[in-house]
Amino acid sequence: MRNHSHCPHAWRNPQHRGRMWAASPAFRRRLFLLRSLSPCAAALPNNTSSSSSSPSTFIRLNAMAASDPVYEADAEAVVRRITPPLDRARHKGQAGKIAVIGGCREYTGAPYFAAISALKVNSTNSSHDVIQGADLSHVFCTRDAATVIKSYSPELIVHPILEESYSVSDGERESVSSRILTEVAKWMERFDCIVVGPGLGRDSFLLDCVSNIMRHARQANIPTVVDGDGLFLITNNLSLVEGNSLAILTPNVYEYKRLVQKVLNCEVNEENASEQLTALCQKIGGITIMQKGKADIISDGKTVTQVSTFGSPRRCGGQGDILSGSVAVFASWARHFLLTNEYPTDKSVNPMMLGCIAGSLLLRKAASHAFEKNKRSTITTDIIEFLGKSLEDICPAGH
Amino acid sequence: MRNHSHCPHAWRNPQHRGRMWAASPAFRRRLFLLRSLSPCAAALPNNTSSSSSSPSTFIRLNAMAASDPVYEADAEAVVRRITPPLDRARHKGQAGKIAVIGGCREYTGAPYFAAISALKVNSTNSSHDVIQGADLSHVFCTRDAATVIKSYSPELIVHPILEESYSVSDGERESVSSRILTEVAKWMERFDCIVVGPGLGRDSFLLDCVSNIMRHARQANIPTVVDGDGLFLITNNLSLVEGNSLAILTPNVYEYKRLVQKVLNCEVNEENASEQLTALCQKIGGITIMQKGKADIISDGKTVTQVSTFGSPRRCGGQGDILSGSVAVFASWARHFLLTNEYPTDKSVNPMMLGCIAGSLLLRKAASHAFEKNKRSTITTDIIEFLGKSLEDICPAGH
Repeated sequence: MRNHSHCPHAWRNPQHRGRMWAASPAFRRRLFLLRSLSPCAAALPNNTSSSSSSPSTFIRLNAMAASDPVYEADAEAVVRRITPPLDRARHKGQAGKIAVIGGCREYTGAPYFAAISALKVNSTNSSHDVIQGADLSHVFCTRDAATVIKSYSPELIVHPILEESYSVSDGERESVSSRILTEVAKWMERFDCIVVGPGLGRDSFLLDCVSNIMRHARQANIPTVVDGDGLFLITNNLSLVEGNSLAILTPNVYEYKRLVQKVLNCEVNEENASEQLTALCQKIGGITIMQKGKADIISDGKTVTQVSTFGSPRRCGGQGDILSGSVAVFASWARHFLLTNEYPTDKSVNPMMLGCIAGSLLLRKAASHAFEKNKRSTITTDIIEFLGKSLEDICPAGH
Repeated sequence: MRNHSHCPHAWRNPQHRGRMWAASPAFRRRLFLLRSLSPCAAALPNNTSSSSSSPSTFIRLNAMAASDPVYEADAEAVVRRITPPLDRARHKGQAGKIAVIGGCREYTGAPYFAAISALKVNSTNSSHDVIQGADLSHVFCTRDAATVIKSYSPELIVHPILEESYSVSDGERESVSSRILTEVAKWMERFDCIVVGPGLGRDSFLLDCVSNIMRHARQANIPTVVDGDGLFLITNNLSLVEGNSLAILTPNVYEYKRLVQKVLNCEVNEENASEQLTALCQKIGGITIMQKGKADIISDGKTVTQVSTFGSPRRCGGQGDILSGSVAVFASWARHFLLTNEYPTDKSVNPMMLGCIAGSLLLRKAASHAFEKNKRSTITTDIIEFLGKSLEDICPAGH
């Protein structure tokens, strides 16, 4: 199917066009992917010279869009394109070095899940990154949380530097806040992406510090995935993400509802979900949002797509943390892929969207395997165990 | 066998009645379950219009009761009825969100076992509970214990808020006590059941705080399982549970002996164990007691039943913690099941009893599997590993 786009006459073939109207989900998936990734199949509205499509084709595509607005992403193909091959000559930036900002007195599991998931998804690099110790997953959390998170796994680098109100006197606030930012800033340049939110909690002083960290990451052009209590933070401080094309938000049903209420001043419209999501992204400006649910709907304000591969009937807490960690790695890879890709690509391809698509699929696959094995007693740790195999299945190491 | 109750003539068949006198344990099990759960087979003494039984039948059942007072519960059927199916559209309240109140300087394993068992038994919800982070198992313990318990598993939410006498000066007692209650109260509404006792210890200040927590839970109509040192607490403060139809006590041999001595002012009578247990429940009023032993005898003062499925010859410490955590989840499910069940049920069905029956069976099954695999070296952790499979065996995920 994919090759039709290279066949000049295929599009004009009435029989083929007829098939397009009745196009299968598989065909639509490839269509989306082709428009996203392939240099040849880009359906530009004003480009009548492209041999692969005609304006009438594009109009048909748009008409399909109106009646069935959400294309299913060809998520497997996305994963295969952006996942770096495991060869020896790998480039810096293909590491997907991640920092998780989260972990406080109450919550130690969430930042661990996010960081260890990123590690599992990651593949290590050439000796380039051995210089940097190939320390791929970092966590920045409070002192209370650090000891515990370190004890979950010796594979993580854990920085006990965040503070909550109860451990800081009023007089110290400004100096402590400043110290925290300085400490994080020392490390920030190394990261290909940060995740803000897993196990962050809602302490006001801590969130102030995290706001500073987010501004710094933005200035340094470091992509930022915002999840959990990070969403609580930005919903009340939209300027932290407004206009940031490197920001990804991953709200669940309730976090999304709060965002819609705050930004669009209305209730969630489930019948026109994809339109509303697109509008939300446009209103905030630049960002990518993955609205999590039975299907994950993803938009950057320009394109909207979904991943609805069935994962598992059991939704356990912690799945969102696996997702945020995975999305961070995939978004880093996608960004690197597009920056270094030798083929000219459709300029509208958004690496943040590709990261979301890939992360969504991987979690669903891993959850499916985990449920098959553990059924009712599937917990987050079980799903993490299957991240490697799931990525391997989509993307064999030989690829 | 089960369908006999729907066959109007079966009961009157002399041959059948004869068989009833000589009724097999299997038949009596079904009888108990039918009386408990089925809308059609409820044997109400004054209901002569029921086609499934006649008053004489009921009298016969009672006569059987006098000569052989303890029905074996059809525990598998109970588990199947109350365990929520794993379909995608699930409701709040079916989560079985549990809090364990326990864990002090000395004891960190017990609260961990209880909380992780609850998690393993649990199945999660629709995206509804993703709001609350689907954080299903909480532990409220001392600061000392919290770090360690958190390190046992990232899946638990652990609150380091209880205090023991040695860490509180006299002058501070009232304010600390008040702070602890406020902190727990913030979270209490989320829980479907709490477990008081695993690893609680006997520090007087800590137990005072826990008394306040229990009173708060009672006011909020949150079912409470009392085990371990929680039983020490309530044996000396019966008002904490008197008349509370949402309280479940799970005493072992020694804890039961102390209760009988305290409440009935006599020694344990093993020959009339079920009668004495029933009397004990009636004296305290409202509560359900599971007297643990070779057979677990369960009563709420109105009904008495037992679960005697063979588990394992090896009884290891920690089994009681697995039990209390599991009972908490099953009792939540049973309560929700009865509140939302579309069939009118026998009003005398007690969800707390159903929770005990289910928890007892599951532990026995899991212990049996664990012993088969590990023989003499079976420890608590081994049994916990089999909770999921044991529930799956009784209650396949497709059900």
